[in-house]
Amino acid sequence: MSDSYIKMWKGLGLDLKAHDMLLGVLGKAYQDIYLAQKDRPAGMGYFDFVMSEVHGLRIKELLDEKEAGRKVIGSYCVFVPEEIVLAANATLVGLCPGADFAMEEVEKLLPRNTCALIKSSFGFKLGKVCPYLESADMIVGENTCDGKKKAYESLNNLVGNLYVMDLPQVKSGQGRVLLKVEYDRFRAAVEELTGVSITAESLKHAIWTVNAKRSAIHRLSSLRKADPTPISGLDALLANQVFFYDNPARFTESVNKICDELENRIADKKGVSPEKTPRMLVSGCPMAVPNWKLPWIVETSGAVIVGEESCVGARGTRNLTDDSGNSMEDLMEAIVDRYFKIDCAIFTPNPERLNHIVEMYEEYRADGVIHYGLQFCQPYLMEAIPIEKALESKNIPTLRIDTDYSMEDFGQLKTRVEAFIEMLK
Amino acid sequence: MSDSYIKMWKGLGLDLKAHDMLLGVLGKAYQDIYLAQKDRPAGMGYFDFVMSEVHGLRIKELLDEKEAGRKVIGSYCVFVPEEIVLAANATLVGLCPGADFAMEEVEKLLPRNTCALIKSSFGFKLGKVCPYLESADMIVGENTCDGKKKAYESLNNLVGNLYVMDLPQVKSGQGRVLLKVEYDRFRAAVEELTGVSITAESLKHAIWTVNAKRSAIHRLSSLRKADPTPISGLDALLANQVFFYDNPARFTESVNKICDELENRIADKKGVSPEKTPRMLVSGCPMAVPNWKLPWIVETSGAVIVGEESCVGARGTRNLTDDSGNSMEDLMEAIVDRYFKIDCAIFTPNPERLNHIVEMYEEYRADGVIHYGLQFCQPYLMEAIPIEKALESKNIPTLRIDTDYSMEDFGQLKTRVEAFIEMLK
Repeated sequence: MSDSYIKMWKGLGLDLKAHDMLLGVLGKAYQDIYLAQKDRPAGMGYFDFVMSEVHGLRIKELLDEKEAGRKVIGSYCVFVPEEIVLAANATLVGLCPGADFAMEEVEKLLPRNTCALIKSSFGFKLGKVCPYLESADMIVGENTCDGKKKAYESLNNLVGNLYVMDLPQVKSGQGRVLLKVEYDRFRAAVEELTGVSITAESLKHAIWTVNAKRSAIHRLSSLRKADPTPISGLDALLANQVFFYDNPARFTESVNKICDELENRIADKKGVSPEKTPRMLVSGCPMAVPNWKLPWIVETSGAVIVGEESCVGARGTRNLTDDSGNSMEDLMEAIVDRYFKIDCAIFTPNPERLNHIVEMYEEYRADGVIHYGLQFCQPYLMEAIPIEKALESKNIPTLRIDTDYSMEDFGQLKTRVEAFIEMLK
Repeated sequence: MSDSYIKMWKGLGLDLKAHDMLLGVLGKAYQDIYLAQKDRPAGMGYFDFVMSEVHGLRIKELLDEKEAGRKVIGSYCVFVPEEIVLAANATLVGLCPGADFAMEEVEKLLPRNTCALIKSSFGFKLGKVCPYLESADMIVGENTCDGKKKAYESLNNLVGNLYVMDLPQVKSGQGRVLLKVEYDRFRAAVEELTGVSITAESLKHAIWTVNAKRSAIHRLSSLRKADPTPISGLDALLANQVFFYDNPARFTESVNKICDELENRIADKKGVSPEKTPRMLVSGCPMAVPNWKLPWIVETSGAVIVGEESCVGARGTRNLTDDSGNSMEDLMEAIVDRYFKIDCAIFTPNPERLNHIVEMYEEYRADGVIHYGLQFCQPYLMEAIPIEKALESKNIPTLRIDTDYSMEDFGQLKTRVEAFIEMLK
């Protein structure tokens, strides 16, 4: 560890001992799960570097940006529009962590029966191990599920700069009005934070930047339709995870470079696993770094993941924002249109999600669907049952898994996943 | 059981065997919990009768009303405005049940980690044991918590007449607009169902009727401030429960009659327990019939309950609707104003609830607060932790309980409640 990083983390108020421990665990997991994979695309070297520097170089970049007067905004949800943040010359970073930390302290503030994602967010704050959170000039919460909505009330006592965005629960006319009002309010808050007036021009440029990032991910996703698939689900998930952290332009370039390589692989019929390896679609709750448990199990059990119907995946990235408008109002309406399409389980009803799962199952030529639910995540667990029934009625093999961030159920999950994959052969 | 009731239940499609079992359990519980109490007000005879006929005479009345062309609307929440229903010459009945039923069937449709109230609603439908549900011409769901919001999507497949009302999550200007839009939409739906055009006059009359019912409950509540308290918490809870089922005018008259009696008791210094018996405020999740477990434990452990900060209690009934307007628009605005004040944990933030608990604690001269949370009820369990801390910082003794409808934890709860009461002496 370089001395300058230690100084940087200290300056952010991190608990150096706890943070060292976290980096140790993260490094070991990355080694065991990622670097142990065979036949990885050479382009993944970029993401290996990003991950090795996830609390180092990237944080230094953010702090350099801050030094130069740029603001950093942290978010816990794909409903926070990056376009608005970039248009104000600020940087958006994802704050959702995927590992248990300081659980004893967390359970003094949150009920034990809270999902791992929310608990983890609190744990990273209470344990003082998240340099992104500590670098943020504004932290954006949003009224999605009850768990997050109510947890932000407590988080507000732990951080000094929480901004909460309200969200609709129904895709009605009134629901869309609420989203528009809230995005306008957010734009004003971002302008106030940054001291930058967003213009139609800056917003249009920001839309291009974010669309380019999404288009690169769409290209990557599309290449996974090939059999043999040229990239593992683990590696594709990593790209989807880094989507939330990296500099947008550099991310776009790096993903496109990998895509060039994957196209050559496809031409050469080269894959990460043999042709006709059982292909899996994963659908459900988001997987934040370093929550790689389920894909690791799947891809070491004889199957390959070809798509993620998830916030960290297609649900978060699938639609572009229409860039054809030239006025602020038109572009803001386009942003509202784009985000209002997100088929999150917080909406009722949410039939688009089932349609999207079926569509992905077909397009990616999957052999089965694994529904991934975080324990106590009511919206996704509630949807899981009717979705499983609907998929099975269409003869789509489905495995429903509820889990958390612990490794306690690893053996049990592996047995279930192996049995499911065996059934598909 | 009279033959005519059996015919009536059969006509409603009830499962007679299962329903008999339910009535048997209900009757036994009522005997053990209610009729075993000492020194009850004579006026409670009315509620004993109501309860003995809760699936009999009251259902016959509803069916007679239906025969005469009146519509019956069922609801699961205090956000459904009875004023609008009555103004259309329809009857509103509560549908929340307080007992486990057909759990095996329920868990095929809902995650195991769903609160007992929601599971029970499904159990009473799947088990075919709720004559209220089967009598309803319209069943109103509402987007309160994630659990209910998402469960209604499945309930929609079980009943043919579900209407879902959207609700705000924030007490903002936009939140109030949503509530107004939704109440206007509900008014139109009720008019369409009933074929009755609601007028300013009929709405004003309905407001009077519901206000009178609430005022009677306020009077009853107020008398519980006396020491010794003239009525048990169990009996007062029963009145609050029957509030959701009974004919409004008859309910108002019966409660006021009990209040006359209680005033005499207070003058005579006569109570249901000796002066200086530890006085408890219960706060949290609603208790639907026959969910009497916690108050039964409290009142057989040496304390008396003097107030309920609950939907089935003060949270549901505390504010009157302003009846001073003369136009439809003014009266609708008054209704929105009244319901928008409800301090349900679905709102974020929800500081009014803590204020109300402290206010009730002082007004009712309570010695302690028991926070009652249903397991997996995220909004109330999330609020429970900061509320407990805030109350304790004000030196208000607080006991936090999470439970469900089963009797499995009875002994454990009793031990905890007894210890808490002992501490207050």
